[in-house]
Amino acid sequence: MALPPAVELRRRNRAALLEQLHRHGPQTRAALTEALELNRSTIGALATDLAESGHLQETTGQSTGSAGRPSTLVACVPQSITVAAVEIRADRLRFALVGLGGEVLERSETALEDGDDPVSAVAVITGGKAGDAVDAVAAMPGLVDEGTVAHSTELGWVDRDVAADLEAATGREWQVVDTATAAAVGEWSRGDAHEARKLLYLHGGRGLTAGLVIEGRSQRGGSIQLGHIVVEPGGRECACGLRGCLEAEMEAFVFAEDIENATLAAGMGDAAARDRLRRSGEDLGRALGAVVTATGPDEILFGGWLRELYLSTAAPVRSALAETTLPHLRSKLRLRTPVLGDEGALMGAAETGFAAVFDRMR
Amino acid sequence: MALPPAVELRRRNRAALLEQLHRHGPQTRAALTEALELNRSTIGALATDLAESGHLQETTGQSTGSAGRPSTLVACVPQSITVAAVEIRADRLRFALVGLGGEVLERSETALEDGDDPVSAVAVITGGKAGDAVDAVAAMPGLVDEGTVAHSTELGWVDRDVAADLEAATGREWQVVDTATAAAVGEWSRGDAHEARKLLYLHGGRGLTAGLVIEGRSQRGGSIQLGHIVVEPGGRECACGLRGCLEAEMEAFVFAEDIENATLAAGMGDAAARDRLRRSGEDLGRALGAVVTATGPDEILFGGWLRELYLSTAAPVRSALAETTLPHLRSKLRLRTPVLGDEGALMGAAETGFAAVFDRMR
Repeated sequence: MALPPAVELRRRNRAALLEQLHRHGPQTRAALTEALELNRSTIGALATDLAESGHLQETTGQSTGSAGRPSTLVACVPQSITVAAVEIRADRLRFALVGLGGEVLERSETALEDGDDPVSAVAVITGGKAGDAVDAVAAMPGLVDEGTVAHSTELGWVDRDVAADLEAATGREWQVVDTATAAAVGEWSRGDAHEARKLLYLHGGRGLTAGLVIEGRSQRGGSIQLGHIVVEPGGRECACGLRGCLEAEMEAFVFAEDIENATLAAGMGDAAARDRLRRSGEDLGRALGAVVTATGPDEILFGGWLRELYLSTAAPVRSALAETTLPHLRSKLRLRTPVLGDEGALMGAAETGFAAVFDRMR
Repeated sequence: MALPPAVELRRRNRAALLEQLHRHGPQTRAALTEALELNRSTIGALATDLAESGHLQETTGQSTGSAGRPSTLVACVPQSITVAAVEIRADRLRFALVGLGGEVLERSETALEDGDDPVSAVAVITGGKAGDAVDAVAAMPGLVDEGTVAHSTELGWVDRDVAADLEAATGREWQVVDTATAAAVGEWSRGDAHEARKLLYLHGGRGLTAGLVIEGRSQRGGSIQLGHIVVEPGGRECACGLRGCLEAEMEAFVFAEDIENATLAAGMGDAAARDRLRRSGEDLGRALGAVVTATGPDEILFGGWLRELYLSTAAPVRSALAETTLPHLRSKLRLRTPVLGDEGALMGAAETGFAAVFDRMR
């Protein structure tokens, strides 16, 4: 059923105003009027309305005008809408309760031992707080499709319906995204990758995964098992059963622990370490060539331990990529490292939740 | 501005009813009532309304019920909404004016000589008829992004703003899609690939392209230069400047003309022809491994001359694909040939136009 038009219009405007403040922080009514292309009285009515419902507050902030008068800023009330975010790794679990406006209201972290089930640990770490949140999102490394982890090198899972398991453990619904996609959303919304139309985030953990987001939104099929692009047909045996996978060729499982040592050794003139880094960079560049040809991103971020690898092997990565990508696809492509570092996936999980919240409001 | 709710609701229902008839053909009011989950009187009012506006007609058709009485069928009036579709190849141009319900109202075809500009030829072949169509869509082989052909092996274009050129030549707006994506839309909507959630269509012309559609809809970045996946690092020189591209390794430019001869020769025991086919199948399977890993389709269709190649080399294609794709991604993957053959891209271009028409109605 369609709602009466005035109600529907006001609902859309409310969502737009909250999203604007959530994304860009406290602003004057004048700035909101301009950003949302609404008139001043509409903004005034919406702000009053949202202040009454407890979502907004108006505060006297620092002067931003030339006259030097203090100006009144409209700001989110963080507690009015909260999203629970967790990031699962094989050896660690992190939880954040994020409020409207992006403020982290609570946060905790716990180590996982071999044999711990991360899903049960989620129930413990969130300690019932996830139940009060408007949305809850879990990020984990692997190939994720609609709540199911189809394959995860790091967690050792195949076809696990994690959304159902999380719901059973915590008594509430969860969205599930892969770590790389979550980090891409995080860098787009809270980092400095906002200009990227198609952003490919590469994550180096105990496996190599990638996530593709378009204009900051996760995509069906945007969760990519980067580590299982075959770069050397008939090459080294991989744990997945194939041969010559990027992960196997780069010895990713041990590399995650010794990337710093290799970089240090190479810097001190160790030719074997230098050679190993160069070859890994070339393998990565070649795998990226295929992914870029198939998906056409305009920005690639090297995250997790791939950040260190890229910083020490940018030249071989770039030259191998150049040898395997059409000039057109390469010309508009930026290669960079993420600015949120280790925080990206957790923040991106929260932002994935807020995107869903704003969508439902409309 | 939001419309009054009754108007908005009726508009959505009108679009849904027209799309239902367009997609599935003439139906009784009872069948429409069931398919659209609306009540009988709403369907009756909509049908009367749409008959008055000239979009529908009610005809006495063959009996479908057990009682044997002739039943009244609701059907589209094809001329009430038309879409102009063209398919451009290097050596040929085809045009169809398709009416609501999918009937081809006009159709023509012309050969193109070397040096002819296909865009000017579009103005001639459509002869002003495109101007009356509600939407117009052109399909052409290459990497297409928002009206621009970024790269086309077959047409020899790089970064050509074809949408602007078509508009200048014909005086109306055009949507531009790549041939493989158009064919995917065609097979999904008018062929038998409707079950595929993520459909990857491979097109063999004077170059190798691919198109990915999700639930029948073309995707941003779904246009893929399959021929420029590097399958042999440092291999044969390709016209694009890279080495070891699938196109170069498969000798696609001559292969398009002699695939039938090679198949015939192989069938008659020519070991060299058989070997060449097998190697081509392996190269194709390996390139597909990378594309499947990066995009995760559940169905792949082999179109254009890749149809013949696949039919004669299914075993090497499948085994090379199996060696380069995670078991999970392979297990849900169907490999088939298209049923619309050479017609798919032109029909899919028209359906791309109808999808836009129905979207605008809502």
